[in-house]
Amino acid sequence: MQIGMIGLGRMGGNMAQRLRDNGHEVIGYDHSPDRRDVASLPELVERLAAPRAVWVMVPAGEPTRATITELSGLLSEGDIVVDGGNSHYLDDRHHAEELGARGIGFVDVGVSGGVWGRENGYALMAGGEAEHIDRVRPIFDALKPTGDFGFVHAGGVGAGHYTKMVHNGIEYGMMQSFAEGYELLAASDIVHDVPGTFRSWKEGTVIRSWLLDLLVRALDDDADLSAIKGYAEDSGEGRWTVQAAVDHAVPLPVITAALYARFASRQEESQAMKVVAALRNQFGGHAVAKEDPAG
Amino acid sequence: MQIGMIGLGRMGGNMAQRLRDNGHEVIGYDHSPDRRDVASLPELVERLAAPRAVWVMVPAGEPTRATITELSGLLSEGDIVVDGGNSHYLDDRHHAEELGARGIGFVDVGVSGGVWGRENGYALMAGGEAEHIDRVRPIFDALKPTGDFGFVHAGGVGAGHYTKMVHNGIEYGMMQSFAEGYELLAASDIVHDVPGTFRSWKEGTVIRSWLLDLLVRALDDDADLSAIKGYAEDSGEGRWTVQAAVDHAVPLPVITAALYARFASRQEESQAMKVVAALRNQFGGHAVAKEDPAG
Amino acid sequence: MQIGMIGLGRMGGNMAQRLRDNGHEVIGYDHSPDRRDVASLPELVERLAAPRAVWVMVPAGEPTRATITELSGLLSEGDIVVDGGNSHYLDDRHHAEELGARGIGFVDVGVSGGVWGRENGYALMAGGEAEHIDRVRPIFDALKPTGDFGFVHAGGVGAGHYTKMVHNGIEYGMMQSFAEGYELLAASDIVHDVPGTFRSWKEGTVIRSWLLDLLVRALDDDADLSAIKGYAEDSGEGRWTVQAAVDHAVPLPVITAALYARFASRQEESQAMKVVAALRNQFGGHAVAKEDPAG
Amino acid sequence: MQIGMIGLGRMGGNMAQRLRDNGHEVIGYDHSPDRRDVASLPELVERLAAPRAVWVMVPAGEPTRATITELSGLLSEGDIVVDGGNSHYLDDRHHAEELGARGIGFVDVGVSGGVWGRENGYALMAGGEAEHIDRVRPIFDALKPTGDFGFVHAGGVGAGHYTKMVHNGIEYGMMQSFAEGYELLAASDIVHDVPGTFRSWKEGTVIRSWLLDLLVRALDDDADLSAIKGYAEDSGEGRWTVQAAVDHAVPLPVITAALYARFASRQEESQAMKVVAALRNQFGGHAVAKEDPAG
Repeated sequence: MQIGMIGLGRMGGNMAQRLRDNGHEVIGYDHSPDRRDVASLPELVERLAAPRAVWVMVPAGEPTRATITELSGLLSEGDIVVDGGNSHYLDDRHHAEELGARGIGFVDVGVSGGVWGRENGYALMAGGEAEHIDRVRPIFDALKPTGDFGFVHAGGVGAGHYTKMVHNGIEYGMMQSFAEGYELLAASDIVHDVPGTFRSWKEGTVIRSWLLDLLVRALDDDADLSAIKGYAEDSGEGRWTVQAAVDHAVPLPVITAALYARFASRQEESQAMKVVAALRNQFGGHAVAKEDPAG
Repeated sequence: MQIGMIGLGRMGGNMAQRLRDNGHEVIGYDHSPDRRDVASLPELVERLAAPRAVWVMVPAGEPTRATITELSGLLSEGDIVVDGGNSHYLDDRHHAEELGARGIGFVDVGVSGGVWGRENGYALMAGGEAEHIDRVRPIFDALKPTGDFGFVHAGGVGAGHYTKMVHNGIEYGMMQSFAEGYELLAASDIVHDVPGTFRSWKEGTVIRSWLLDLLVRALDDDADLSAIKGYAEDSGEGRWTVQAAVDHAVPLPVITAALYARFASRQEESQAMKVVAALRNQFGGHAVAKEDPAG
Repeated sequence: MQIGMIGLGRMGGNMAQRLRDNGHEVIGYDHSPDRRDVASLPELVERLAAPRAVWVMVPAGEPTRATITELSGLLSEGDIVVDGGNSHYLDDRHHAEELGARGIGFVDVGVSGGVWGRENGYALMAGGEAEHIDRVRPIFDALKPTGDFGFVHAGGVGAGHYTKMVHNGIEYGMMQSFAEGYELLAASDIVHDVPGTFRSWKEGTVIRSWLLDLLVRALDDDADLSAIKGYAEDSGEGRWTVQAAVDHAVPLPVITAALYARFASRQEESQAMKVVAALRNQFGGHAVAKEDPAG
Repeated sequence: MQIGMIGLGRMGGNMAQRLRDNGHEVIGYDHSPDRRDVASLPELVERLAAPRAVWVMVPAGEPTRATITELSGLLSEGDIVVDGGNSHYLDDRHHAEELGARGIGFVDVGVSGGVWGRENGYALMAGGEAEHIDRVRPIFDALKPTGDFGFVHAGGVGAGHYTKMVHNGIEYGMMQSFAEGYELLAASDIVHDVPGTFRSWKEGTVIRSWLLDLLVRALDDDADLSAIKGYAEDSGEGRWTVQAAVDHAVPLPVITAALYARFASRQEESQAMKVVAALRNQFGGHAVAKEDPAG
């Protein structure tokens, strides 16, 4: 089928390619002239045959909001917009209403797969009405992995991004689990082959997983990760997971600890621990490590 | 090769069968007359040709200690003992010394695989001296999965159980990650298909893993886990992981939170939260929920 | 001085009384006819001499928002509004702008003290411009405890509620610290006098504090807290603290754990732990506790 | 009364002085010749009139064990030994048995008070038999603060050190609560007076406490703690608290998080976070921060 793709960066560009490889016609727009087929959203809409389908793959927040508002003025009743970016699930409701007021359908889709998706397929989680989802199902079928899994219609508007958010929260917890295990192995003087231990776990263990495979790849390149700094960004979805947990009064100790470990990894020094050191000094006369005045 | 197997319960019995299926001769001893080939350890030792190899697969702690002490009096120089149970890694040193004093070799092996191991193979993590490990390598080769992975000589005496302990700690964190994600999905009123969401994640996602596959199996049987109580035992290795972390001054927030979630799941009521409720009542006049005097 | 007080519930009523006891004239409005001096906000504003000061002490969120919007239409340039409720610090900015557009000053004040405040004084944390704060300083002086402490001009608009929010976050962590210590004492079979231990800590220890005093009061009444359920609500400010931490990328493991412990205390059963139990059953054949079908 | 004091360091020396100030006769032994009244334990025992009382105030572990073993050979039936050091509660049982076999009484005492104790008194938590405790009660009365509190007979042998351990665990949680609150205040751009906010909390708040007073003292000296490194040691009792929690299956999320924050504060770099960074790079192509090869 024919689809307009807005945003042809690392994710959108690869997805457009996978769609074309599967016989779909993709007309792409990007703010960068190098990558795009059309120079503007009006031109994109003009090039698409009604009823149109447009996939928005731009950064979450203001860029997505602005794009959807512009599209709501350009598209017609019966057209459909898919937001495949990392939008917050509460934004989806507004977008669905804005578009719905003009008879335009809306589907939110969480997309997992990273740099491997173009080859292996992208796991897709969709939210919205069944009739809207059915309209773009050929696109979903082309993007998803070829097996029985990798696509779900998870629920109403927002459910696609909500489930993707939770997926990423689980991912945070799993990554930190491997990370803590690594540190505890590395701290032992009786374990001599840490990379070999992880490698051996690829088969027969309870913890075998794609993340373990990736960690083994990383350790194959750099056996003690000596070239990599212990510094981890967070992409926003971990934060949203914790905020959703607080909103729903769901205790999420593991996922939250994983998020906080990333926050801490980016601090040169903990303000909190200055307080602990100061208090120990006050009540116990414990020496404090002084900041180097020259530093 | 020939090996004596002490302990023919769920794990030991299946392992003995897998060894026999692979052409090894296993002479088994168990305290239960129904399962055993010989009636006593002396008879077992007598039946084995020197240099003998004995695999101990009995509960950790006192049963393992008693078995090894008895074996140290029965075996001869050049024989070898493998402890494949869930012993604490600090016990291994004592066992190695006790046996080593009489010229008997010792290898500690952490075994993963659960009820699936007989068919799929057991992941093995071994600690000890290379010459001792080489002596029983045919046994390891038969027990492990058939691929390139599933066995590691992780380090010196204790390293097998230490790495298995860490494996289980990682497992605790991963399981709790899925568990928290499940609860957050279930708490949302926009997600209508929680089991379908997990099922979809089996392909193309970052979190695909054997544990996810198992969770999908469980949800296939019971879509909202309504027949299962939110009550989880711990097997001891999670506790040891946390204690090893404390001993090594390694922060392990995720794995520890996973362990504590199990502790809490087994409490009818939290003594700690009585204190919080009492304090809120004291300073804020907040109502407290009263215990039912009849309950 | 003269002040209008909107909201005469447990907090507002006691504060009005403390102000009157200190010689101030309080004209009170409440939605309940039993407690109020005037029947409406217009009547309240009419009764106050310009430049007027009005203290808003109504529930956070919509009630506070509606009250401030109504006041912005009734008050005049040079008047001042104090929000002493538990508003979110980000709401303060909107209120200050809405009122400021009409020349009306705004101060946000976090108030601590609970049911003890009328007698002991209320700790006050204020945010806003110095000239606005100075306008109502006699009121602050009357409400605060009589010593050198108990009042701070913490910063710009929102700083009063932000610091009060953090105060409550610290309070969550401290309460949970005592709670965990209590549970660990109660779990020991060598400690025979848990209430006596807490009582002894009132002097000479590092942890002596008002919260400890309150816990001793509670234990004096009910030595093992047998009449109190381990069930704790949260007032919203703990949640805001965690959300502010996530927004500012500040790791807050202790305060978050304290909040999550409250969430968990209110669950009859953990959905998450059903998953852990199901997974243990899947991979290890561990028995699961079945829900009672009749239950 | 007369008492022998073994160990005259910062704690023991101050305690001996407080006892003398209260009219007791203290005969002191220390390994350092400068501080001691007698040159050896035999000389100490000889100088004391039977039935003798000896207070051991030396480092926990081997030094305490060796001292008690030596005393068990020197003292006589009816004498009594008090261990006022920071021994692990499980050691107490062994010491009580070793001494009890020779008719010598044993009391374990946890002592809180730090550098402030000599002036303000030491909080004491005692474990053992009532008759043994009564024998040294005049000493306890002199050491404790002068008010109604500050001493408890908490339970059987070990209960003194167990309750002191839990006290320190609570202390860890409280300190970290203040520390996290500090960091969250410092991270806000609307709060302009962080030290003033803490100072104001000394009266009228729920969190007023001795630790808050100490933090205010520290901030009075150094308003942003710029001279203090965010680096905190742990004294061992926090670790024991977590290990006791694991042994008793008591969830202790707050106290454990406080301990882990100290561990993390002492790491130049987190090995765990190298793994998280490596994994993000593997699956998402996220850039990793490279270690400076020259660093």
